[in-house]
Amino acid sequence: MGLVVQKFGGTSVADIEKIRNVANRVIRTATAGNRVVVVLSAMAGITDSLINLANQAAEDPDGRELDSLLSTGEQTTVALLAMMLTDMGYKARSLLGFQAGIRTNAAATKARIISIDAEKIRTLLAGGYIVVVAGFQGIDDDGNITTLGRGGSDTSAVALAAAIKADVCEIYTDVDGVYTTDPSICEKARKLSRISYDEMLEMASLGAKVLQIRSVEFAKKYNVPVHVRTSFGEEEGTMVLQEDTGMEELVISGVTCSKGEARITFKKVADVPGVASEIFGPIAEARILVDMIIQNTRAGGQTDLTFTVPRGDYKKALAIAQETGKAIGAEEVMGAENLAKVSIIGVGMKNHSGVASTMFSTLAAEGINIQMISTSEIRISCVVEEKYAELAVRVLHTAFGLDKKE
Amino acid sequence: MGLVVQKFGGTSVADIEKIRNVANRVIRTATAGNRVVVVLSAMAGITDSLINLANQAAEDPDGRELDSLLSTGEQTTVALLAMMLTDMGYKARSLLGFQAGIRTNAAATKARIISIDAEKIRTLLAGGYIVVVAGFQGIDDDGNITTLGRGGSDTSAVALAAAIKADVCEIYTDVDGVYTTDPSICEKARKLSRISYDEMLEMASLGAKVLQIRSVEFAKKYNVPVHVRTSFGEEEGTMVLQEDTGMEELVISGVTCSKGEARITFKKVADVPGVASEIFGPIAEARILVDMIIQNTRAGGQTDLTFTVPRGDYKKALAIAQETGKAIGAEEVMGAENLAKVSIIGVGMKNHSGVASTMFSTLAAEGINIQMISTSEIRISCVVEEKYAELAVRVLHTAFGLDKKE
Repeated sequence: MGLVVQKFGGTSVADIEKIRNVANRVIRTATAGNRVVVVLSAMAGITDSLINLANQAAEDPDGRELDSLLSTGEQTTVALLAMMLTDMGYKARSLLGFQAGIRTNAAATKARIISIDAEKIRTLLAGGYIVVVAGFQGIDDDGNITTLGRGGSDTSAVALAAAIKADVCEIYTDVDGVYTTDPSICEKARKLSRISYDEMLEMASLGAKVLQIRSVEFAKKYNVPVHVRTSFGEEEGTMVLQEDTGMEELVISGVTCSKGEARITFKKVADVPGVASEIFGPIAEARILVDMIIQNTRAGGQTDLTFTVPRGDYKKALAIAQETGKAIGAEEVMGAENLAKVSIIGVGMKNHSGVASTMFSTLAAEGINIQMISTSEIRISCVVEEKYAELAVRVLHTAFGLDKKE
Repeated sequence: MGLVVQKFGGTSVADIEKIRNVANRVIRTATAGNRVVVVLSAMAGITDSLINLANQAAEDPDGRELDSLLSTGEQTTVALLAMMLTDMGYKARSLLGFQAGIRTNAAATKARIISIDAEKIRTLLAGGYIVVVAGFQGIDDDGNITTLGRGGSDTSAVALAAAIKADVCEIYTDVDGVYTTDPSICEKARKLSRISYDEMLEMASLGAKVLQIRSVEFAKKYNVPVHVRTSFGEEEGTMVLQEDTGMEELVISGVTCSKGEARITFKKVADVPGVASEIFGPIAEARILVDMIIQNTRAGGQTDLTFTVPRGDYKKALAIAQETGKAIGAEEVMGAENLAKVSIIGVGMKNHSGVASTMFSTLAAEGINIQMISTSEIRISCVVEEKYAELAVRVLHTAFGLDKKE
């Protein structure tokens, strides 16, 4: 007996038969005595088809028009589910973003939810309706349809759950929960029954693509319990919760790995104020995202500076850096591709010493050289040669006791 | 230098290349110094595909949800055209029904436009924008998306033209105008340069499917000049106007023919009050549309009563009629299929005598027997055997001087 938001992604509504599975699940939840708000994505592949169509229509499609076009994807699935539920004898009503009161800023194609006026949803729920809301979309102050960017439906679901004070926001997806690491890399990966918002944020930003990162930020901000689970079975998935709500007693919750990193190093540049901005200004202007930055001071007022960029931007970044290198009198500007970033994540490391040294010695024991290190309160990341990425994940997974029981 | 509404149907926006043709035409109109509001249909075939999808989702799709689903068709084309125009360097903005202020009643799938708040369109036009409005759709007082039914985009265009007091509403279609008759039946058919609203209404309701009938009613009510023309060329089409604005000096403007009629006759029923309602009540309850009704009084307080129904409803109507016949003591209830209705239409017949007798004698000269006759102020219709339909059209076309010059 509760108030539940259930979000289904593109693979869960890919065709009429899959939508029927969604309908059946929603009905089970409703007939168990819950009030249900359903949030849907577009059918898998549809958003890409629409973008493709837009690219045929315009070299650089106008963002406002693109949003109006893309929003048809979710409009289609919510209407189909609502008419299906109605046809099966249940009271159901679909709501588009603007009808559901989802107000966003005016940033086309990557809008942010500003507020939700959930009056209409509350009225429908009170009237016994299953409410089916189009994810990914909202409306700005000028009445333009906006979209929230890739994965935005997760954010819609969590924001709606916050607005109506739902007991839980269930995210149905094609995986059955959040794993300690990528099971395709490490077969001993196991599903976590609980994980904290902060850990989930680190996992999401490091490449575990289960939940859209903004939806986790939203969940954390409004303390919405999120249940990530499979849409193809009944088993429980992973609860994403506040850290103090009885987490498992793990020091480390997960190991992640992000390939496709590249590194650029400035050798022997003058260690004076302003050098960093001379180096990173042109990189930022080229809209290249810099991740890790490390600076080693040498003797004689000189320093080495190294940073990582996505591999796709490597060539461009290197060319820019070499120009800058000449201008600021660096001895050499060199780079390396084929790097990966391996991270361990866990709120437990706040209260446990020795986590870092365990990580370093574990990698060293396998002969894996650590090229760069960065840390946060709940994460330690090491840049290693890409060929060692999977091995590093597996040995760390074992070293921190994450392997599933045989 | 004017204010022009241009409406393009589904075949004119069937793919990106066709939409590009539309863009070029709109730009020509705009650069000639006109302010332009464009109204689009969905891509040809899309509405049917969506209906098909709905029928897979539900045996009897909920009308409100169906409307939300169907409205994605026009949402797609207006976004594509607007982004194309913007990409070509013109200021353009798409508006969905609700954004364009098109308010309708709540009759899902066949809503009627109640009012248009054209403030937003006026503001955009004043700002130099080409405004691209989704046809076929509006919003009701509860914020539900509604659609206007088949051909509704014509009605959207004419209603918008009335609301913004446009100089002309151009309806671009796959035919190049309104013809004196169906050119596939009569090769001597010729394009009319002008036709009155009333004639167009009779033409439309009798099977000349160029303009949606409700759009003509709207045009007449608000005196909107409508220009029906081809989207595949530059030539002028047919102006639909008020009757007093310099029409051609024709007695008859067109000959139409509607096949697929059937007839049911009650023989010798009592000629007393209430008989007609006993006959037509059950027919109406079965939602069968009765067209022509003729009653001949016989001697002895008895009468014969004949009416026509669409052929698809013939069997059902005959069964109902035979039940009624027993109940009211008719001597016999009989019917006939394979009938057609041939009509001549023209405001000129108001001021010319002898039109009816010319029609009857022309048909008689070809040995075509007239089974029923009905008339309005500007129309005479005769029911004949279907096999004579084309012949009747051709001889009447010649008899009333409509044949094009060789």
